[in-house]
Order: sequence, then C-alpha cells, then structure tokens
Amino acid sequence: MNEFALIDTFFKSFTHDRDDVVFGIGDDAACLQIATGKQLLVSCDTLVAGVHFLDDWDAYDIACKAVAVNVSDMAAMGASPCWLTLALTLPDCNPPWLKRFSQGLADSLNHFNIALVGGDTTRGPLSITLTIHGQVPSNKAVRRSGANAGDKIYVSGELGAAAQAVAFLARIDLDHADKAILMAKLLHPTPRIDLNHCLQTFASAAIDISDGLSADLSHICAASNVGACLMLAGIPVHPLVKKYQGVNAIDFALSGGDDYELCFTVPPAQEEGFKAALAQARLTCYPIGIIESQPGLRVQEISGTVVSLNVRGYSHF
Amino acid sequence: MNEFALIDTFFKSFTHDRDDVVFGIGDDAACLQIATGKQLLVSCDTLVAGVHFLDDWDAYDIACKAVAVNVSDMAAMGASPCWLTLALTLPDCNPPWLKRFSQGLADSLNHFNIALVGGDTTRGPLSITLTIHGQVPSNKAVRRSGANAGDKIYVSGELGAAAQAVAFLARIDLDHADKAILMAKLLHPTPRIDLNHCLQTFASAAIDISDGLSADLSHICAASNVGACLMLAGIPVHPLVKKYQGVNAIDFALSGGDDYELCFTVPPAQEEGFKAALAQARLTCYPIGIIESQPGLRVQEISGTVVSLNVRGYSHF
Repeated sequence: MNEFALIDTFFKSFTHDRDDVVFGIGDDAACLQIATGKQLLVSCDTLVAGVHFLDDWDAYDIACKAVAVNVSDMAAMGASPCWLTLALTLPDCNPPWLKRFSQGLADSLNHFNIALVGGDTTRGPLSITLTIHGQVPSNKAVRRSGANAGDKIYVSGELGAAAQAVAFLARIDLDHADKAILMAKLLHPTPRIDLNHCLQTFASAAIDISDGLSADLSHICAASNVGACLMLAGIPVHPLVKKYQGVNAIDFALSGGDDYELCFTVPPAQEEGFKAALAQARLTCYPIGIIESQPGLRVQEISGTVVSLNVRGYSHF
Repeated sequence: MNEFALIDTFFKSFTHDRDDVVFGIGDDAACLQIATGKQLLVSCDTLVAGVHFLDDWDAYDIACKAVAVNVSDMAAMGASPCWLTLALTLPDCNPPWLKRFSQGLADSLNHFNIALVGGDTTRGPLSITLTIHGQVPSNKAVRRSGANAGDKIYVSGELGAAAQAVAFLARIDLDHADKAILMAKLLHPTPRIDLNHCLQTFASAAIDISDGLSADLSHICAASNVGACLMLAGIPVHPLVKKYQGVNAIDFALSGGDDYELCFTVPPAQEEGFKAALAQARLTCYPIGIIESQPGLRVQEISGTVVSLNVRGYSHF
C-alpha cells in the first residue's frame, strides 16, 4: 500500500459537520473560513513513541490522547477547536494499527466536532504531530500573561491521577478497577472546553496542566511577572492518588503532568460573576491560592507555615 | 538545557514584521487575525532524518528546505504564506546544530515574511514538522480539481535538477561547480509564490512538483476526472540533467521529485490574459501539454507517436 492508498483507506473517509471547511484533504492545502468577529488560534503537539506513549498501547488510545492534548491547548485559551492537521510518521504500513488509530482519531474528532483537514504521511520512527486550529471571539483569548497580584488561582479538577497511572504502568498486582480508572485519566483526559465561556468572560490568565501544576502555574507567573502562594489544603487530589500515595499524594498533584485540567486566575472584581456562571453551567472549580506580587511559588502548608516551592515538571532535555 | 531554555535560546528571538500576529510563541496557542475577505490555507509537511535529508547535511540547509517545501504548498494554491508552527523532535540538545537550524529557519522566514508563531519541542529521532498557514482572497484558491479537457498544461521552470542532485549525492568525482548548482536546487528550491496572482486569476488547477511531474500531474487528472497528453519536446529539462543523463534526461524531468516548480492548467479562454500577465510580471512558464477527457497520462514523443506514460513517483510505503 503506498501512502496515497493509505490515506484513502484510513483517513479520507472522515466525515465532519462543519460548513467552515471550504475544502479539506485532497489538495496541497486545506481552505478554511474564519467566522466574522473571530480570531484564529493555532497550536501543535507531538507525541513520540517511547516518550509520550508506549509501543504496546492500543493505537485507538494513542489517537484519542493526541487529540485531547491538542484540544486542551484550545481550552487553555478559552477557544473552540475547529480543524486539525495530522503529520503521521510510521515505521511501516501496519493496517491493523492504522485501523485502530484512525478509529480513535475519528471518534475523538467527532466528539469535539473537529474536522480533519489535511496532513502528511511519512516513513520513519513512529511519531504523531497534530496541529489544531480553533476560533475565539476577537480579543477574548485568555493568555498566560494577564494575572495580577490579588487574583485568585483556580484549578478545574482533581490532580495527580495521570502521574499515578504512569507510576503504576508496569504493576499488575493492583486492583483492576483502580488501575482502569487511573489509565483512563492518562489515556483519555477530558480537555476542559466546557469552561470556555467562563474563562473568556472572567479569567485574567490560564494554562493547561500538562507538565504539572507547579511548573504550569510558574509559566503563568513568569509571563505575568508575578508570584503565587498555593494553599495545600485547597488543592484537589484525586482520591486514588491519596489511596496509593498517602502523605506523598500532594507531590503527585503538584508535580504530576498529563492531567490536562486547567489552572487559571480570576480577578477579585470578577469573582462573584465567575462563581455565578460556574453554578449556572453546573461546573465545579477549586480555589487553590492567590497571585502575589513577589516572584516565585510558595505553599501554605496545613499547619499555616508558608514555604517556597521547588518547581518540578517534565522536561525533555 | 531544558526545553524551555532551548526554545528561549534558539527560537524566541525570532522577529517578524506582521501586524496580523495578535500573539505568537509563549502561550498555549498563537492568536492570528485573518484579513477581511480572505480565507485561511493550512498545510503541513514532515521531514524525517535519513528519509528527506541526510544526517550530515548542514542544519541551516535542512531548515531552509523544510520552509521551502511548505511555502511551495501555499504557492500551489495561489496563497500567500503568513505563519508557521514548528514541531521539532530532537535526539538530544545539540547547541551547534540548533544554532545552524534556527539561523536557517530565521533567514528563510524573513525572506518570505512568515512569522514563527508556535511549536513543540520533543525528544526522539530527528524529525521536523512544519505547519504553514497562508491567506488567499475568498474563493480564489486554486485547487487540483478544476482542470477541463482543452486546458493547456504548464510548468513554471526547468525540471530534474533535484533528482539529479540526489543521484549524485555520493559522487565526489563530479565537476564541483555543477554539483554545487544541483545541490542548491535540492537544498534551496524556490517556491513559486511569484506566480500567485497569475494562478489566482487564470489557472483552473495547480499542484507543486514534489513527487515528480508525472505523479503530480496525475493527481490533478484524478481530482479533475480528466487525462493529459504531454509533448515531450516541450518539457523543460535542466541543462545539467541533459549534460549528465543524455537520452535519459527526460525520465528525470518526468519522474524526479523535489523540484518544487508548479504544474498548472489554463483554460483556452484565459490563455491570452495569462500570457500577458506573465509577460508583465517578467516570468516564464512552459506549455507542456493538454488536458484531455480520456483518463490517464500520455506523451507525444519527438517523432509524433503518442504512447501511454507509466506514472512513477516517490512513495514512502
């Protein structure tokens, strides 16, 4: 099967329900229509075999994870995902793998109403680069740089489960139900586009938690030229992380990556409106600390003592 | 050096002169403003070490080639390139390589007035995925599917030099001046965005020649549901291909990839206007054949005999 047959067989049949795709796969480029009053958001993420996923993972899950990671970047900006390109590098043409991968991709894209509009298929060590495109009302994108001293820091959900799953990958002696829950958190994270409206309207800064809460919050602080103090008691730790890690659970919540919840800041004047909008949307977010003018990250321990926090997060190099 | 320091050191200092970048590198996504009356074009291409380039190539040249290949996809649509994301997978942090790569990238992007607006840096086997974004006046993008029987087929320049360079890569016994010319064609192809206006106004279909003239023209034919007859005598073969290949030169011109000239079709009613616009822009294109209703590719040999052409082009699988 040559690459054109491969694309025809596994990717050309993707359907979508978007009338803003003027044309997609089949030309040298896709042609897309941005809505009046909207701006374009673009982000790309690469998943490399052996680094971001293991060779023995189901290709269906790999595709879902790749999409979720990219959609999460849109969620972090308060943007709606619209279109995707796929650069797929494969060691060989493996139809069973490709079938599972394309099924996972199609199901994920349908779930988020994203159109696959183009890509490139090459031979080489397995890796997947997705470039996602979204739209946001003009000047409503939420950046990392807008946080100010006094803003409250929120996270959108419980943390640490994905890191716990990674720690347990090779263990077969675990409770199967627990492991399944944790693996679902790692393989099928839920990008928080349900918070788009709340973020656009009320947040001063946002980021998604891919490298770990402390690392990602430190990006907000650096971009906004501020610092932060976290209240350890307020950080929502996934119950299975507490179950397996005990007193170390908070470390998983602070440093564990791959959760793809959002960390964002809300100015005091927006607090009331934000809480009302959250309640109306039946969503729960967790206040975990406060932005301060003093640079650096600090944590207030349960005892009340404030100590500085060493930022740890995943780095490739 | 972690990946954030790597990005800061080698990629964050890129400058650009585009006021349509609302914000670029430094957030979870870039934010871009499409001009009123324009549509967005998106394309991506991956270059894999050992497949699309050799490990011993100067990283400066690799970056230039990666940009040119992507810009060429915009040229094939008649679109102006605007913004780029870079997904760079590296086996290690190699500052001298990164310095050359980022210099080549910066110089190429400045040349085309393209802004680097985001990307992802990961560890793994060396590969480079660029996703390029361009703009075209609404409904003016030139597709593969618009050719009709009777349209004249053109190419935008001499063919075969890049394939000749690949054939000669390992030869050190060649005339150095000749080899330098051929390698420049392979490493620094010229994407034909200078033809944008002519294509938008007069062409019925277009494609860039990445896989070889016969393979790429066959894509136009398949998408347009037509066939084509090429006049062998009209196909412009690079003089150095003639010099080294003699009677086989035409095969290099027909089947050799990597030239990144354009192949396009012009309806009879547009022919006069097209020629006048070309002359006014001081550009030369070569009429090489005619679109026919009968499917398949044929060639008229110098003798006048018409024979069918077996399509050969590069395939990864």
